[in-house]
Amino acid sequence: MTTLGNMMSLPLLISSILTHAVNNNPNQQIVTALDDGTTHEYTYTNFAARTRKLATALNTRNIQPGDRVGTLAWNTYRHLEIYYATSGIGAICHTINPRLHLDQIAFIINDAQDSILFFDHHFTALVEKLATLCPSVREWILLNEGEHNSRQSDSWSSYSDWLTTSDTDFAWPVFDENTASGLCYTSGTTGNPKGALYSHRSTVLHAYASCHPDAVGISCRDAVMPLVPMFHVNAWGLPYSSLLSGAKIVMPGANLKGDALYRLCESEGVSISAGVPSVWQGLLDHTQANGLVFSTLRRAVIGGAACSAHMIVAFARINVAVRHAWGMTEVSPLGTVCTLTSEHQNLSAQEQQTVLSSQGRPLFGAEFKIINENGQRLPHDGASTGNLMVKGNWVIDTYYRDTKSALMDGWFHTGDVATIDKLGYLRITDRSKDVIKSGGEWISSIDIENIAMEHPDVLVAACIAQKHEKWGERPLLVVVKKPSATVGAADILNMFINRITKWSIPDEVKFIDDMPMTATGKLQKNALRNLFEN
Amino acid sequence: MTTLGNMMSLPLLISSILTHAVNNNPNQQIVTALDDGTTHEYTYTNFAARTRKLATALNTRNIQPGDRVGTLAWNTYRHLEIYYATSGIGAICHTINPRLHLDQIAFIINDAQDSILFFDHHFTALVEKLATLCPSVREWILLNEGEHNSRQSDSWSSYSDWLTTSDTDFAWPVFDENTASGLCYTSGTTGNPKGALYSHRSTVLHAYASCHPDAVGISCRDAVMPLVPMFHVNAWGLPYSSLLSGAKIVMPGANLKGDALYRLCESEGVSISAGVPSVWQGLLDHTQANGLVFSTLRRAVIGGAACSAHMIVAFARINVAVRHAWGMTEVSPLGTVCTLTSEHQNLSAQEQQTVLSSQGRPLFGAEFKIINENGQRLPHDGASTGNLMVKGNWVIDTYYRDTKSALMDGWFHTGDVATIDKLGYLRITDRSKDVIKSGGEWISSIDIENIAMEHPDVLVAACIAQKHEKWGERPLLVVVKKPSATVGAADILNMFINRITKWSIPDEVKFIDDMPMTATGKLQKNALRNLFEN
Ligand SMILES: Nc1ncnc2c1ncn2[C@@H]1O[C@H](COP(=O)(O)O)[C@@H](O)[C@H]1O
Repeated sequence: MTTLGNMMSLPLLISSILTHAVNNNPNQQIVTALDDGTTHEYTYTNFAARTRKLATALNTRNIQPGDRVGTLAWNTYRHLEIYYATSGIGAICHTINPRLHLDQIAFIINDAQDSILFFDHHFTALVEKLATLCPSVREWILLNEGEHNSRQSDSWSSYSDWLTTSDTDFAWPVFDENTASGLCYTSGTTGNPKGALYSHRSTVLHAYASCHPDAVGISCRDAVMPLVPMFHVNAWGLPYSSLLSGAKIVMPGANLKGDALYRLCESEGVSISAGVPSVWQGLLDHTQANGLVFSTLRRAVIGGAACSAHMIVAFARINVAVRHAWGMTEVSPLGTVCTLTSEHQNLSAQEQQTVLSSQGRPLFGAEFKIINENGQRLPHDGASTGNLMVKGNWVIDTYYRDTKSALMDGWFHTGDVATIDKLGYLRITDRSKDVIKSGGEWISSIDIENIAMEHPDVLVAACIAQKHEKWGERPLLVVVKKPSATVGAADILNMFINRITKWSIPDEVKFIDDMPMTATGKLQKNALRNLFEN
Repeated sequence: MTTLGNMMSLPLLISSILTHAVNNNPNQQIVTALDDGTTHEYTYTNFAARTRKLATALNTRNIQPGDRVGTLAWNTYRHLEIYYATSGIGAICHTINPRLHLDQIAFIINDAQDSILFFDHHFTALVEKLATLCPSVREWILLNEGEHNSRQSDSWSSYSDWLTTSDTDFAWPVFDENTASGLCYTSGTTGNPKGALYSHRSTVLHAYASCHPDAVGISCRDAVMPLVPMFHVNAWGLPYSSLLSGAKIVMPGANLKGDALYRLCESEGVSISAGVPSVWQGLLDHTQANGLVFSTLRRAVIGGAACSAHMIVAFARINVAVRHAWGMTEVSPLGTVCTLTSEHQNLSAQEQQTVLSSQGRPLFGAEFKIINENGQRLPHDGASTGNLMVKGNWVIDTYYRDTKSALMDGWFHTGDVATIDKLGYLRITDRSKDVIKSGGEWISSIDIENIAMEHPDVLVAACIAQKHEKWGERPLLVVVKKPSATVGAADILNMFINRITKWSIPDEVKFIDDMPMTATGKLQKNALRNLFEN
């Protein structure tokens, strides 16, 4: 007979993060970069008060628990208010990626059946087109507040009017911790986007795990700048983990260019930031071009796409420690983060960089395995390459509105191909659909791209499979040069000698002017394959 | 209508800490100091294998889910094996404080109805007495393994025999996360001891929160030495949080003297340690007497009783940062830990020490309030003093075997009296039963003790209330001098001038030879009050 413990049972709710944060850090700041180069600043106390007002307004306007509330917005304090207010009343915060194609955005809003939608003034033209395509949205709310000359229109209401209600007496409701809190669609390259429907429990557990010293590791003395957009898997949970930790929050707004980000880092004393490699590259280029160093930034969490050893070294040179992270929409998103263990302390700097360029080890609460095509577990020996499977409390079990489970024997199939070593370090070699199989052997496109990116004249490199009569497939390297660079194919191919096995070296390099990228900063290999078919 | 999220739902189980730890840190070490001055060392892999064997043995010997398994043991790898094996199969790990009186121990075992009991050879004499007093215990198991000449007896079996079974095919069972996992009795100074029955959920959430950078903050590069005994509220959860983090674990065994602990710290590279002030004092005295510094120790978590500013300064001088923590058996135990916020960075060193001498701020998941005698909430202004109430998922709601709730309106009454400031910093002024009320004003005995302890000749100081005709009560200071110290009452009383209000200064100092302490290292003020009753 099982005995239950005699402990209090309080639901894990997102509103409890807000309550904890404001009770213990009333004066902590939330700073947002505005379009005009100035900043908006206020405290956790102001933030909490406005969030309660917004919650009251949502209730007043009859937003019900379970209703989807859409957002098309950059990283700002207002977006943060919407995060906490919607989830706090039991509604679902549905962040939409404005970089997707109009059809995809319309599809997503219609699939989610959003009741209302908040949008930044940058997206007014988009919203005008969406309005007729998305009948479920009964109110479009412009996130204005007079700080920019936003166009007025009869078709939308304004955020400032929503916040006129008083928050007196409002208290966050208490409900089941498994209640849905947020919705995010994967920007799948094939088929229609699919939604991941997070719960309060999954979000709070993910926040607990993210704060671990070997994960994002946020303290109340940190200033955290999420470069990753709040429409990209909840900015990797930073809106939760930063508040939970009582950290200063620095929101970059719409301008993610290197110079703007550098200025913001310096003026706001940012110590931790997180984003995809392409945005970090912009920041790095700016510092290198101008001989700059960071005064306060000490940790760069980089993920969403593979971060090269090259970038890790470049940041190490200016005393910024890169933490390479792996995640995906279906995993809330953080699965692994890379730090060294005590076993690595005696390795050479170069050997340590090799470890640091892997995607790292699981957060407590996420478990990984790799399997072969027959579903058999492969050993964690750092060599066996297989399909990456994950499970944990912040992993989806079904896609939104789907009836059939997204799992295989209780595990979620990530679609990534990886090795895992005996210390649990994950190394992603490919998306399974990007795998190159040459003469029966797998070639890692990520390895090849990382080496090519080391060339000072290479801006971006992508490696794809090209059909080949004899070998089945052969790797083709596609390169965008830096402006005014003169590098040739042979220079680049020379870099591979003695770095990888001979048969893995691409036969050819093709130069193009622009790299097709997805809306979340990943190489769009589909488009490349179409371009170079045969 | 509420919508639930579409996330996996896996129970939060203690066995998942073990699985995570061993999968990702197979070679990490667990080192135990043995009686003969040598150490026992093995890896997480060995530990996990032996724990599975023990679990198999518990199953074989018919230990059922819900059964209580007692321990009378020091901090060793074997005790850790028992922790994980018992909870892992759904049984309850019941740690017993061997420093209590025989009657109390017998009462506790009988109240818990322990089925079997594991004990260290240090406690064989105790066990011989207990055997006849505790009929529920059907097997007493000596934690021998041939490393000491333990007396054999027909009345008990031996641990080494329990570990002969093979662990092939054993898999940790999956069950409700609210299942009871551990039992610990409070060593209350009045009335019978009462049990706190922890659950898997409460233990895992407590571990998540403890690992936060502003709580205990453990990384996989740390070596953690729990000075606090594993029979004292699960060594403050370090057996869970350290494994969760993949840290090296250093178990001090039975010898908690300053010289032994110092040697162990140095030889094992301990970076974080945690315990009550009296044990830390022993370690500090040893370093001071011998002009020693620590090579690797950088963080001392001190709690269980108030840590003086004096001790914090002394450790700061040798580059060890003290983190003052507050907890209690009913709170698993960690409620608050003290670190500075960015608001404190510009304060003077002395002002910072004042902050650091407070008990700190709540872990995310614990919430505090203070109330007056009428149950009304008092402001968090750092001045209003009230009864401290706590709630959270790792706070008990009922005592073991009790039917009535231990809560008042959903809050647990800690029995402590405290202030809370606007940043959430808790400052315990007294146990409510130790409060001194003089002329209608409350006097904090902890403040007075901390000042007295600053005198170099004072070993321990305790301040208690003495009945007084005019003022109701007056503070009496009781002091144990250091060996061969010559300090007089006037010297000590002079220290209070201009430090606290005049009427708070004790009228008298009494010198005694030994301070009565509880089994968990707290001043036993009851005994003092009896001693000095007019
Ligand atoms: N650090 C990383 N290295 C390589 N690929 C990554 C990394 N982080 C994320 N990804 C890829 O991004 C996918 C998730 O995309 P998304 O759901 O849009 O965030 C993963 O399945 C990986 O293919």
